[in-house]
Amino acid sequence: MKLWNRRFHSRKRIPLLEDFNASIKEDNFLYKAEIEASKAYAKALKKTSILNKNELNKILSGLNKIKENLEQGENLNQFEDIHSAIELLLTEEIGETGKKLHTGRSRNEQVVTDERLYLKKKIPQIINLLEKIQVNVIKSAEENFDVVIPGYTHLQQAQCVLFSHYIMSLFWQMERGKNRLHDSLKRVDSLTLGVGALAGSSIPVDREYMKDLLGFSSVSENSLDSVSDRSFILEILFALSLILLDLSRLAEDFIIFTSQEFDFLEMDDSISTSSSLMPQKKNPDFFELIRASSVKIFGYLTTLFMIIKGLPFSYNKDLQEDKIPLYNGVEETIKVLKVFDFALHKIKPKREKILDKISPFILSTDLVDYLIEKGMPFRDAHGVVGEIVDYAQNENKELNLLRIDEFRNFCDLFNDDVYDVFSFNNSIKKKRTYGSTNPKYVKIQIEKAKGLIGYSQKDRK
Amino acid sequence: MKLWNRRFHSRKRIPLLEDFNASIKEDNFLYKAEIEASKAYAKALKKTSILNKNELNKILSGLNKIKENLEQGENLNQFEDIHSAIELLLTEEIGETGKKLHTGRSRNEQVVTDERLYLKKKIPQIINLLEKIQVNVIKSAEENFDVVIPGYTHLQQAQCVLFSHYIMSLFWQMERGKNRLHDSLKRVDSLTLGVGALAGSSIPVDREYMKDLLGFSSVSENSLDSVSDRSFILEILFALSLILLDLSRLAEDFIIFTSQEFDFLEMDDSISTSSSLMPQKKNPDFFELIRASSVKIFGYLTTLFMIIKGLPFSYNKDLQEDKIPLYNGVEETIKVLKVFDFALHKIKPKREKILDKISPFILSTDLVDYLIEKGMPFRDAHGVVGEIVDYAQNENKELNLLRIDEFRNFCDLFNDDVYDVFSFNNSIKKKRTYGSTNPKYVKIQIEKAKGLIGYSQKDRK
Amino acid sequence: MKLWNRRFHSRKRIPLLEDFNASIKEDNFLYKAEIEASKAYAKALKKTSILNKNELNKILSGLNKIKENLEQGENLNQFEDIHSAIELLLTEEIGETGKKLHTGRSRNEQVVTDERLYLKKKIPQIINLLEKIQVNVIKSAEENFDVVIPGYTHLQQAQCVLFSHYIMSLFWQMERGKNRLHDSLKRVDSLTLGVGALAGSSIPVDREYMKDLLGFSSVSENSLDSVSDRSFILEILFALSLILLDLSRLAEDFIIFTSQEFDFLEMDDSISTSSSLMPQKKNPDFFELIRASSVKIFGYLTTLFMIIKGLPFSYNKDLQEDKIPLYNGVEETIKVLKVFDFALHKIKPKREKILDKISPFILSTDLVDYLIEKGMPFRDAHGVVGEIVDYAQNENKELNLLRIDEFRNFCDLFNDDVYDVFSFNNSIKKKRTYGSTNPKYVKIQIEKAKGLIGYSQKDRK
Amino acid sequence: MKLWNRRFHSRKRIPLLEDFNASIKEDNFLYKAEIEASKAYAKALKKTSILNKNELNKILSGLNKIKENLEQGENLNQFEDIHSAIELLLTEEIGETGKKLHTGRSRNEQVVTDERLYLKKKIPQIINLLEKIQVNVIKSAEENFDVVIPGYTHLQQAQCVLFSHYIMSLFWQMERGKNRLHDSLKRVDSLTLGVGALAGSSIPVDREYMKDLLGFSSVSENSLDSVSDRSFILEILFALSLILLDLSRLAEDFIIFTSQEFDFLEMDDSISTSSSLMPQKKNPDFFELIRASSVKIFGYLTTLFMIIKGLPFSYNKDLQEDKIPLYNGVEETIKVLKVFDFALHKIKPKREKILDKISPFILSTDLVDYLIEKGMPFRDAHGVVGEIVDYAQNENKELNLLRIDEFRNFCDLFNDDVYDVFSFNNSIKKKRTYGSTNPKYVKIQIEKAKGLIGYSQKDRK
Repeated sequence: MKLWNRRFHSRKRIPLLEDFNASIKEDNFLYKAEIEASKAYAKALKKTSILNKNELNKILSGLNKIKENLEQGENLNQFEDIHSAIELLLTEEIGETGKKLHTGRSRNEQVVTDERLYLKKKIPQIINLLEKIQVNVIKSAEENFDVVIPGYTHLQQAQCVLFSHYIMSLFWQMERGKNRLHDSLKRVDSLTLGVGALAGSSIPVDREYMKDLLGFSSVSENSLDSVSDRSFILEILFALSLILLDLSRLAEDFIIFTSQEFDFLEMDDSISTSSSLMPQKKNPDFFELIRASSVKIFGYLTTLFMIIKGLPFSYNKDLQEDKIPLYNGVEETIKVLKVFDFALHKIKPKREKILDKISPFILSTDLVDYLIEKGMPFRDAHGVVGEIVDYAQNENKELNLLRIDEFRNFCDLFNDDVYDVFSFNNSIKKKRTYGSTNPKYVKIQIEKAKGLIGYSQKDRK
Repeated sequence: MKLWNRRFHSRKRIPLLEDFNASIKEDNFLYKAEIEASKAYAKALKKTSILNKNELNKILSGLNKIKENLEQGENLNQFEDIHSAIELLLTEEIGETGKKLHTGRSRNEQVVTDERLYLKKKIPQIINLLEKIQVNVIKSAEENFDVVIPGYTHLQQAQCVLFSHYIMSLFWQMERGKNRLHDSLKRVDSLTLGVGALAGSSIPVDREYMKDLLGFSSVSENSLDSVSDRSFILEILFALSLILLDLSRLAEDFIIFTSQEFDFLEMDDSISTSSSLMPQKKNPDFFELIRASSVKIFGYLTTLFMIIKGLPFSYNKDLQEDKIPLYNGVEETIKVLKVFDFALHKIKPKREKILDKISPFILSTDLVDYLIEKGMPFRDAHGVVGEIVDYAQNENKELNLLRIDEFRNFCDLFNDDVYDVFSFNNSIKKKRTYGSTNPKYVKIQIEKAKGLIGYSQKDRK
Repeated sequence: MKLWNRRFHSRKRIPLLEDFNASIKEDNFLYKAEIEASKAYAKALKKTSILNKNELNKILSGLNKIKENLEQGENLNQFEDIHSAIELLLTEEIGETGKKLHTGRSRNEQVVTDERLYLKKKIPQIINLLEKIQVNVIKSAEENFDVVIPGYTHLQQAQCVLFSHYIMSLFWQMERGKNRLHDSLKRVDSLTLGVGALAGSSIPVDREYMKDLLGFSSVSENSLDSVSDRSFILEILFALSLILLDLSRLAEDFIIFTSQEFDFLEMDDSISTSSSLMPQKKNPDFFELIRASSVKIFGYLTTLFMIIKGLPFSYNKDLQEDKIPLYNGVEETIKVLKVFDFALHKIKPKREKILDKISPFILSTDLVDYLIEKGMPFRDAHGVVGEIVDYAQNENKELNLLRIDEFRNFCDLFNDDVYDVFSFNNSIKKKRTYGSTNPKYVKIQIEKAKGLIGYSQKDRK
Repeated sequence: MKLWNRRFHSRKRIPLLEDFNASIKEDNFLYKAEIEASKAYAKALKKTSILNKNELNKILSGLNKIKENLEQGENLNQFEDIHSAIELLLTEEIGETGKKLHTGRSRNEQVVTDERLYLKKKIPQIINLLEKIQVNVIKSAEENFDVVIPGYTHLQQAQCVLFSHYIMSLFWQMERGKNRLHDSLKRVDSLTLGVGALAGSSIPVDREYMKDLLGFSSVSENSLDSVSDRSFILEILFALSLILLDLSRLAEDFIIFTSQEFDFLEMDDSISTSSSLMPQKKNPDFFELIRASSVKIFGYLTTLFMIIKGLPFSYNKDLQEDKIPLYNGVEETIKVLKVFDFALHKIKPKREKILDKISPFILSTDLVDYLIEKGMPFRDAHGVVGEIVDYAQNENKELNLLRIDEFRNFCDLFNDDVYDVFSFNNSIKKKRTYGSTNPKYVKIQIEKAKGLIGYSQKDRK
């Protein structure tokens, strides 16, 4: 059903084309925003005296009625898009007055207004979810504070770290994620209603007034730019995909850590699934799906970026295809964050099993430090320890099981105190820089994190 | 040439593998940052008494010497990467003392420190270039203030707009581009030196001190996060690709506008090229290359995003592949912005030719407004004008050439004053919303823009 | 509802997790394939005597009943995925015997079998649609055989070409598209059923037998590879996106050609839409949506490619996310091809209007040829004509309106016969290479095209 | 330096613009193809009598001379592109005759001809490298034929497989890779020379003759299509990225397998690297770089795809940006394949260590099979074994260490013969489908593979 088909009246309905052209299945999620914006626009029309008080009231109550119906699941599929749907339903509801609502208004401006209102609702929800994850990260860090795990580079055991330090890295990732969303929101938060199809409106609707009604913090400066721009959606999609990219790395770790060979994590049954064929399987499906999620959002971003590339000014129909990226990008991210937050509760490091798996070779750097403390330059110390490591591996001995004379074969700076090096806890405590895994600094880190999100004992029970 | 090959001493050199593993061809652009960071690190080592004053001075002057040689084009291709190159050159230059510089330091932290220093230099340059473009946009808007052009939607003439309004949309795009870079820079601007390979350093280098020496505004909070994270590069690449995406749209317009059929723009010979075969050709090559540029950066972004997806913590060799995206992303953007800025000077709207091309049908919305002013509801007025447009096209008449009785056939609200509608300038002046193409508002827009960038008559000569 | 939850019996239902884990909304499109494959599997089980004849018949008729219900729209949303849905419905339908169907079978093999069956149905449909477009291209080429249009490079008028030659380029693009699909289909057309979860099945189901039942042309060679591989989907998505990429270029041309400034094409009302605000607009919406379509498919491809990158062997849950790319990629392509085919009928070149827009400068190359025929080397001739073009443009004269003495000022090889050059039709006829726009060669081209697709007068009415 | 600058003679040289416009740094890799194509073109001109025999000979020997110089490293950076470089060098070398070579020829056709010639050389080399890898896969499968490893799904131990079966999956991946390249090569292998700038050439060069001279298998059918199309490059880039995608999965496995926790593989020192800080590290750098490589090619593909999307016909300058994707895509793939081939030799499964890591729980499916053989329906058997697995895990017992009465507590079908189930080798032998890991079928698989590539004992030493 179309609004302005008088000129094309003779046209036969061709379902193939109508279906291809229609966007209602993709844009009906905007109905609340469309109604909210329509109310503000009606009020602004009243100020211009296009509408009188009575007409305004009819429109407002008509819109409320439509909203109720839609909340109860009324189907809009017979309409072309959400804008014409609301307008036609309004005219159906309140008669001729409804037709006046579109005075001086264009779908080109309506759609971006709706999209901006939608994001202004959703992004704070996402930021809240991120903060919820941060709270759980802090809890996990505190609960497992002194669990020692191997830190990896190249998936090879590199140096010991505290689990609390390890998991806190997620806190900072989510913090950046929140900051990026806050930053992008500034560019979302601009009223585009009142710019007309592209050139401005001949009806002098008060845009400042509509801005205040709808809670935007500024009014867009250029009508052409306002109907052309979709970078606010791209920005949000990118910020979301970066958040999920960080989670995809942690998910990868957790998948590896729950393999039989690592066996570092207790994973609650609620977040694993079994196999249709193999009864022993306890698969980390949720983390696998989380690992995949970042690229789903990035795929939407790619599509929308490519659609815009090389389009001429100002509005082009191609831009209609921004709905699926926008909606799916936002809603799928929300789903992933909720699942991740749930899963984070259900993961616990297996303190003893992990200890069993750490090889004393991981302390080679500490052995280098030992020689440096005895006065050897770094590069030489690194070389000596390299030779000792080679020797021990060829002898099939753990590093801490070499005899003192074996050590001294390589360098006579070694004394009996060398065996003090072979303690994972000592290794951690010998890290001495701000931001390191030293328990002292991890505590400082956790306190700083708590301060940032206003975490306090009583709130976070 | 490798630094720490003692353990692997028996290994034969295999050029295929060395070439594949080496990054020097991709990371040598970081040499200034590497040297700057090395100086700060040496000073911090001095504070820990790993180095004495004399050793520090030797290292500092050695590094200065190396920098001079590199500025004169010394080739580093025989080294593995920029970090080992500088260290080996230093030891060559000053002897054993050079070996101490790497004490407690890891390439994992060095590379991100260098990358952050590089971006802290380059991003402000890019912001300056964007502001230069903004200045030229304002100049062009003022010089061609009242030139009327057709505004397009769907590449169909839609409504008249001022050229000044049209070109000012670029101002706001570049403003958003600058703001995004400023926002991303906050997350670049963090010192990662001193975090060691992943767990922190056993040498208590004062990270606050290095932060001050290198001009960072904060110290990173978590060592694992510091060596793992590349999102600061992804953010910058994305911000750059969005800037170029905006330019790609204007480039598309300019390419269309310089076709023989449009013929809207004078394009200086300096920014067009001829054909090897067809002597009449005057091709808008530069705008075509600009149109392509956004996706080059987006391609780099895609690669780096995909590389990171699903990597485990913390440093993995895959991350070495961030160099080409980073360097090319930044340097190609700079080149495009310079060319675009140059080209913007060399484009002028052809006032008269454009006027010839605007069809009076573009004033149909004004005709609708005419009927609304006479009291008809919008939707009905839109319908009536639709029928008139149909009629005129069938009669093969321009809209303004219809007789009054023809108008009145469709609606008796039409009077002789209808012919006042048919003026492009009137149409523009009848736009009455903030942000519209009305000359009054375009002036306000330009003033606001000037205020934002501190544009003043005397500076901008 | 889950099949194998005995081990996880104590687990509470957590809707958030079930919804996240379930794929039924994305994979229910595979129900026909799932049922078809299940029938073949049941027959193979009968051959191994896991099932007796009676049990087989019960299963077959149960599956038929389920198919009927599904064809009438039965909703499956309460199930986890299409595989468990069919199995549970079967047990509901026929009792205990239904449980035997899954003997030795794994969802890992089922899903790829279903996907391959689906593609074996859909790809030939797409190839048919491509051939339908080719037929219409030939028709359009014949109907508008001798219409002259400017050929463009850099969107600048370059040389005259026949419209028939221009539109025939689409024929060859679609031909390549068909060939790519044929090639990719070879790699789709392989039976993966019978490979078990990853290692093969302990039930000796006869895979050759199932291959014949399901119409595959070969049996996969390696069970691990069979459950891991998704490249057959990537290949198809890529082939589809290339087809749409070709259409996006033609769509771009058509959008430009229907602008008021070009005005080259009659576009039937059925394939244009009007504006909600501007009654004169006749927007090429369909071509804009077609222009956007290639990147939608490419976005899906990007997502699936990235999901697979760096996954370990063999099946991982991440692969579940292949459904939306597969289904949407295929179905959206089908829709676009149908719309494009329809639209192609509704476009006609405006012979006279086009002629009016061609500038005689387009014949500059012919002028160069004129001098070459008189004996001048190419580069010199190109230079002379370049100077003449400059002169004419400065004098504001069309090239054909220069006097003979003006020509001779630049080179005395010019004689009165130079004016014969200034005919668009002559220019076209002077092209003398195979594959050129010379009418003689365009006819050969059309005949060759007809031969390739078996086009004959009587079929193509 | 430019060829046809007479018309633009007054233009000042602007290095910024020249550098931006020039492609010589990206396209000089095409010099051999350009010279080869130029020779063929010269011969064709001779047939049209544009050139006489003497002129032809001068041109041919001039081109030979230029080729020699270039092979010795002559730098071309002062030229605009490879086409003008060769032409100008020729005129420098042989004088005025050189100018005739460009008669009727356009860079638009030259560039695609060169690119096609380049690919016709390179793709067969890549196919050879793939076959080399296949040979090594077969060798590795034979050398380690009966090594048992855990097969994984979801990175959880799923069922036992032979290492030979596991590694043979790579054979089939590479086989598909070769087939895709063969298929794409058909569409590369078409002569585009002689199509002029877009419309065909007025010089009747014999394209069949040039096709034969250059070894193409067909002549392109449509001049517009010939200069517009870049899908042949996209196809190749896609085929290459799919090959590397397969390798990225194996690389992921190898990286996981060489972790201390898995410790499944001996990795020769030659393909691992150490750490600048941690002397014990033996990092799988090469596999990490291989894992990253697929997305580098995919990034290039993305860029080129996006560049083409929505371009109008025919040649546009944007297409110049195809060089880096083409060249880097091909050359980087070659490098990765060589490194991977080398690395494959240097990896060996650690038979005993792997056995130690396999948990008897991996035989749960075999336990299900045991019950099925005793007559229980599959779903019930799966349920019973699920309960047993739960029980054993709670009791902290391996599955094979349960007492017979414990088994019978769950189901009285269990007898003493149940302990025969607990043999990894039995498990493998009980797989009974074609393509399974049963040694019998793996042997068949290897024989089939050998047949496909013509592997024979004597050749493959």
